[in-house]
Amino acid sequence: MALIVHKYGGTSMGSTERIKNVAKRVAKWARAGHQMVVVPSAMSGETNRLLGLAKELASSKTDASHDRELDMLASTGEQASSALLAIALQAEGVPSVSYAGWQVSVHTDSAFTKARIESIDDARVRADLAAGKVVVITGFQGVDDAGNITTLGRGGSDTSAVAIAAAMKAAECLIYTDVDGVYTTDPRVEPDARRLQTVSFEEMLEMASLGSKVLQIRSVEFAGKYKVPLRVLSSFTPWDIDINEEAKSGTLITFEEDENMEQAVVSGIAFNRDEAKISVLGVPDRPGIAYHILGAVADANIEVDVIIQNLSKDGKTDFSFTVNRNDYAKATDLLKAKVMPTLGAAEIVGDTKICKVSIVGIGMRSHVGVASKMFRVLSEEGINIQMISTSEIKTSVVIDEKYMELAVRSLHKAFDLDQPTA
Amino acid sequence: MALIVHKYGGTSMGSTERIKNVAKRVAKWARAGHQMVVVPSAMSGETNRLLGLAKELASSKTDASHDRELDMLASTGEQASSALLAIALQAEGVPSVSYAGWQVSVHTDSAFTKARIESIDDARVRADLAAGKVVVITGFQGVDDAGNITTLGRGGSDTSAVAIAAAMKAAECLIYTDVDGVYTTDPRVEPDARRLQTVSFEEMLEMASLGSKVLQIRSVEFAGKYKVPLRVLSSFTPWDIDINEEAKSGTLITFEEDENMEQAVVSGIAFNRDEAKISVLGVPDRPGIAYHILGAVADANIEVDVIIQNLSKDGKTDFSFTVNRNDYAKATDLLKAKVMPTLGAAEIVGDTKICKVSIVGIGMRSHVGVASKMFRVLSEEGINIQMISTSEIKTSVVIDEKYMELAVRSLHKAFDLDQPTA
Repeated sequence: MALIVHKYGGTSMGSTERIKNVAKRVAKWARAGHQMVVVPSAMSGETNRLLGLAKELASSKTDASHDRELDMLASTGEQASSALLAIALQAEGVPSVSYAGWQVSVHTDSAFTKARIESIDDARVRADLAAGKVVVITGFQGVDDAGNITTLGRGGSDTSAVAIAAAMKAAECLIYTDVDGVYTTDPRVEPDARRLQTVSFEEMLEMASLGSKVLQIRSVEFAGKYKVPLRVLSSFTPWDIDINEEAKSGTLITFEEDENMEQAVVSGIAFNRDEAKISVLGVPDRPGIAYHILGAVADANIEVDVIIQNLSKDGKTDFSFTVNRNDYAKATDLLKAKVMPTLGAAEIVGDTKICKVSIVGIGMRSHVGVASKMFRVLSEEGINIQMISTSEIKTSVVIDEKYMELAVRSLHKAFDLDQPTA
Repeated sequence: MALIVHKYGGTSMGSTERIKNVAKRVAKWARAGHQMVVVPSAMSGETNRLLGLAKELASSKTDASHDRELDMLASTGEQASSALLAIALQAEGVPSVSYAGWQVSVHTDSAFTKARIESIDDARVRADLAAGKVVVITGFQGVDDAGNITTLGRGGSDTSAVAIAAAMKAAECLIYTDVDGVYTTDPRVEPDARRLQTVSFEEMLEMASLGSKVLQIRSVEFAGKYKVPLRVLSSFTPWDIDINEEAKSGTLITFEEDENMEQAVVSGIAFNRDEAKISVLGVPDRPGIAYHILGAVADANIEVDVIIQNLSKDGKTDFSFTVNRNDYAKATDLLKAKVMPTLGAAEIVGDTKICKVSIVGIGMRSHVGVASKMFRVLSEEGINIQMISTSEIKTSVVIDEKYMELAVRSLHKAFDLDQPTA
């Protein structure tokens, strides 16, 4: 008997048969006495279809007025799927009403195609819930102060669902997706990977940004900011499984530190093989050197991940960083053309055959020696570490990509991630 | 240098290539110095696709809450095509912005799936026009007092365009469609049928309701009420034809009586072969008889067109009317089961092989003998008239359907419709 938000991804809404299953599942929750708010994505493929049409029509130069129209266009996908879900719920005998973002109202800033939610007026939704209706609210979109439709960017329906759950102080926000939770690492690399029953918000942030793409990162930030209990679970279980079993399935993302007192030191192993390493060798070691190099890279809209500056020797130092592999050629060309001449750097070298492996765990905060155990395990496997980067709850290493699977499996076993937690 | 409204149908918006052509045509008008408002329909097939999905999900029982969701769903088609047209205009170098019905705001009543426009707030549109933008407004949809999306029913984009033109006091509303105007009769029946350069509003109403389905009837009523100059013309002329030539093409629907002083007595021949005739014979001639018969038919949601009651003889009369052929079996079954027993009627007979042929002309008002000329022409061709119905500007006859083409051609020639007007 609580206010619950369900979010269903595009795959779960991918056909009328699947929409019927979503309706049956939501109806089960409503009949159990819960007040239900449901946030669906567009039917899978629909957003790409619409943006494909726009691409055929657009000129090469785009600006805010173009982006405004893209949002007008793309937001129709969620509006259609929301209306379809309400129709399916009504056919199930469950009173239901659907709302577009502007109707409820999901207020955002005016950053078209990547807007941020600022507030939600939930009076209308509460009145419907009190009247016994299931309320379906379009994900992915909102309205700005001038009454323009905005969208939140790819994966924005997760953020919509969490924001609505936060605004309405929902008991829980359930994100139904095509995986059944968050794992200690990718099961395709380590078959013994185990589903986590709970994961802390901070760990989830690190896991998400490191490549375990279960949830949109901004939705996790939002959940953390407003302490929305968030559960990731599968939409491909039979709709009629026992509701109490379903309510405990998947992975719960938690915000209460003390809940996790007894948890494992390391929660998961993340990895990313989309990066490339660039080193600028023989750089004069003087103030402003990092800005000089990275400023040029940032100006070209290239994102930098791990950054390392070696100890200086004879007034010279080496400076290394990683970028996405797609940006590697652009970044090295840029450095050779613009930075080397003015900097007097001796050489620029790079390597695209690298990967980043990270151990993530909120328990690392209070346990010494976790990083050194990681280094020992890798050393025992004969894996050379090229770069190291650490934060409070994460330690990342850059290694040769051919050792990635070996590193992940060794670390997974060494930190007992294949064993159930107490 | 005037405010002009263009409306483009679904076929004209049917592909990105066609949308590009619409954009080029609108750009031509904008560059000629006109303030342009454009109302597009959904891309052809899109509304049917969406409603098809809804049908797969719906239960048999539908009510206002179902219809509300159908409007949420169906309105997305026009929103998408409007955004696509704005994108295409921007690509042409013409500043453009698109608005959904609720954004401008097109206020309607709450009759979902068949709403009526009540008012339009045009402040936002005027500001955009003053800033040199082409404004694209979704057809077919509006918003009710409670902030629900409504749609105007099939063909509603015509009505949207006329209502916007009326609210903004546009110089002219141009309806671009797949025919190049209103003809004296259907050219498939009479190859000498001639395009009318002008037709009066009243004649257009009679032509539209009689089967020359060029414009949605409600849009013509709206145009008449607010005296919006309305032009029907082809969207399949090359986009780059001379704008002055284009501005005079198609058919102009006029409202000024004196403009038409010199026009022909009869403007066109309409026909309809979708009707069937039902006669109730030997009915006691007493007050309330018409209500008794037609009330039962109306209660079954069957629309009646021509109605004739014969002179009474020996206290008995015959009562005849026409219905759509699809309703013929239902109507006769109903009359036999419910009306005959209580009424004491002798017999119910019917005929589905009939057609209705009408001459329409505002000039008939001031010319006697037009109807009798019609009857003479038909008589000379040996065509028996089964029913006659007249109004101020129209005379309709019901005849055997096998004579339809002959009747249309004879009347077309007899009233000189193949000759250009002076």
